[in-house]
Amino acid sequence: MSAPAPSERAFVPFVSVDNMMKLVHRIGVETMLSGIAEYVEEDFRRWELFDKTPRVASHSKEGVIELMPTSDGVTYGFKYVNGHPKNTKEGLQTVTAFGLLADVYTGYPVLLTEMTVLTALRTAATSAVVAKHLAPKDAHTMAMIGNGAQSEFQALAMKEICGIKTLRLYDIDPKATEKLMRNLEGRGLTLQPCKSPEEAALGAQIITTCTADKQNATVLSDNMVGTGVHINAIGGDCPGKTELASGILSRSDVFVEYPPQTRVEGEIQQMPEDFPVTEMWKVITGQAEGRTSDRQITLFDGVGFATEDFSALRYVRDQLEGTGLYHDLDMLADPDDPRDLFGMVMRANPEGGETA
Amino acid sequence: MSAPAPSERAFVPFVSVDNMMKLVHRIGVETMLSGIAEYVEEDFRRWELFDKTPRVASHSKEGVIELMPTSDGVTYGFKYVNGHPKNTKEGLQTVTAFGLLADVYTGYPVLLTEMTVLTALRTAATSAVVAKHLAPKDAHTMAMIGNGAQSEFQALAMKEICGIKTLRLYDIDPKATEKLMRNLEGRGLTLQPCKSPEEAALGAQIITTCTADKQNATVLSDNMVGTGVHINAIGGDCPGKTELASGILSRSDVFVEYPPQTRVEGEIQQMPEDFPVTEMWKVITGQAEGRTSDRQITLFDGVGFATEDFSALRYVRDQLEGTGLYHDLDMLADPDDPRDLFGMVMRANPEGGETA
Repeated sequence: MSAPAPSERAFVPFVSVDNMMKLVHRIGVETMLSGIAEYVEEDFRRWELFDKTPRVASHSKEGVIELMPTSDGVTYGFKYVNGHPKNTKEGLQTVTAFGLLADVYTGYPVLLTEMTVLTALRTAATSAVVAKHLAPKDAHTMAMIGNGAQSEFQALAMKEICGIKTLRLYDIDPKATEKLMRNLEGRGLTLQPCKSPEEAALGAQIITTCTADKQNATVLSDNMVGTGVHINAIGGDCPGKTELASGILSRSDVFVEYPPQTRVEGEIQQMPEDFPVTEMWKVITGQAEGRTSDRQITLFDGVGFATEDFSALRYVRDQLEGTGLYHDLDMLADPDDPRDLFGMVMRANPEGGETA
Repeated sequence: MSAPAPSERAFVPFVSVDNMMKLVHRIGVETMLSGIAEYVEEDFRRWELFDKTPRVASHSKEGVIELMPTSDGVTYGFKYVNGHPKNTKEGLQTVTAFGLLADVYTGYPVLLTEMTVLTALRTAATSAVVAKHLAPKDAHTMAMIGNGAQSEFQALAMKEICGIKTLRLYDIDPKATEKLMRNLEGRGLTLQPCKSPEEAALGAQIITTCTADKQNATVLSDNMVGTGVHINAIGGDCPGKTELASGILSRSDVFVEYPPQTRVEGEIQQMPEDFPVTEMWKVITGQAEGRTSDRQITLFDGVGFATEDFSALRYVRDQLEGTGLYHDLDMLADPDDPRDLFGMVMRANPEGGETA
């Protein structure tokens, strides 16, 4: 007797990397960044609803593997993500990820998807949502320090959502800058390669730092940051990894996603435990002040939080219908009689008889 | 230009429910239970190596969704599992699960698999490993209270690993017992249906309780447990869910997997925080005593720990080669130039031109 066909419940829609890339092209990358940004902002507004926990990290000498779960009471989501700075040298991604949504009522998964591409999109969307609330009005120029895998996504989100027109580019490896310029050619941004971070920061209203070394580096030193700028510090975060001189933190008003996580992983790990920070959800809901003067330095110490992945997963789920850009994965055992798991397994015997 | 083919690294071998069932038949269910038991015991012996954390639970009115990560420093694993006792009434599984192994050195996943079937196998294998160390010598009869989805697996593991020959069966629903008897017919066990838990416990050297109500129930009352027995209490565990009268706990020597998790979820949640327990890995490695007398009641307060899933995942990975019982999932974005994620996405444009 052959295995009976699994019921519909047993199948989980799966979005492969190939299908995610097709989805990006179908929607358009800028439109998708704006769409995800709307979901990210919506979930910041619903912040208090969420079941929040710092990511669950397993550290090793070479990197970290993390699980980032959250739930809004109706839907549960989590992301698996690694961070291995040394991977690039071996031709691998520093960050790879996949994610899942499940129905809280049944506990059954309802979506599995690649999230390497999606994480780059959601990180950029989040940076742009934050900059929309904190950057100086009429910001038009952004310095982009670090021109790696995340940089183009950051640039396009800042263009689409915050009206950035000019990028001033710096990377310790000029080839990375060349790659960025090739990739963003013809997308409506003026691209200015620079010879130093100092040069890149000149005339910029937004400074984005996005580097990946696992060490306390000083990508941005104190004298490079003038009054009135917004700093978007989103480089791969973990304990022992920072990008900014502590002097900048002292001069800035610092905004974060979820303080218990940021104090461990973010730039503020350099500062005392009671260093004052403002939670972004409070700014977005009007419960806390964002930018209050033209001379103020605002600093988004972004580390990436589970709710942002949740927002991106929700967005993908809502866009999938009718696209055919997924396939059904036979991931859940779902016997006709839920108490008869053993019988289901036995009836699936390809030989039709008894097993050894 | 069509999308370039992803590199081999980008593919994650995926074992569907259908392929897991085929694997069970290819190996044979009893042989597979013994094999997993060997891996479980091996990982108990390596206990101190593991990165251990209580499971990360998201509770709701209807149930719980949990992530169970662990790592031995070389391989990382986690399981997603839900527990929704009300699901059975709606024709769904109380427990569904899937799991993943990843390479600690790169952070790249190396195996994704269904784990609903595999969890039943590893839970039974673990119970049998524990019973092998704690049950009275020459135990031949087991009472099985609760004849649901886990029961046949428990029975076969106890037969194969501990030499159990007779099962005394009780379930509040006689149909569950009938199902079990149908499923285990011809597998070398004497099956004795009983009209009450008391009757089932008569003459049994091992008593297995395996029920799933989300409440403090008394499946086993104090007067039902005579001297010298081994109790295998493995019913679906969460805060507020117990199966045993506290009097039994007081009379027993209690053995657990990982105390920080068991004190929250297990039978011992009824007891004071300093209630003495012995960790199974210490018994298995000879660092603590197990059964010391014929009159002693040993109690395994099993809640299921991440290392056991890790063992089962390792077993499956080691069995897969050459079977063809998996397919490759395009789950990881893996551009030729790891810094050029954006370029990879753009080159995948099915239209071959610019996106909107």
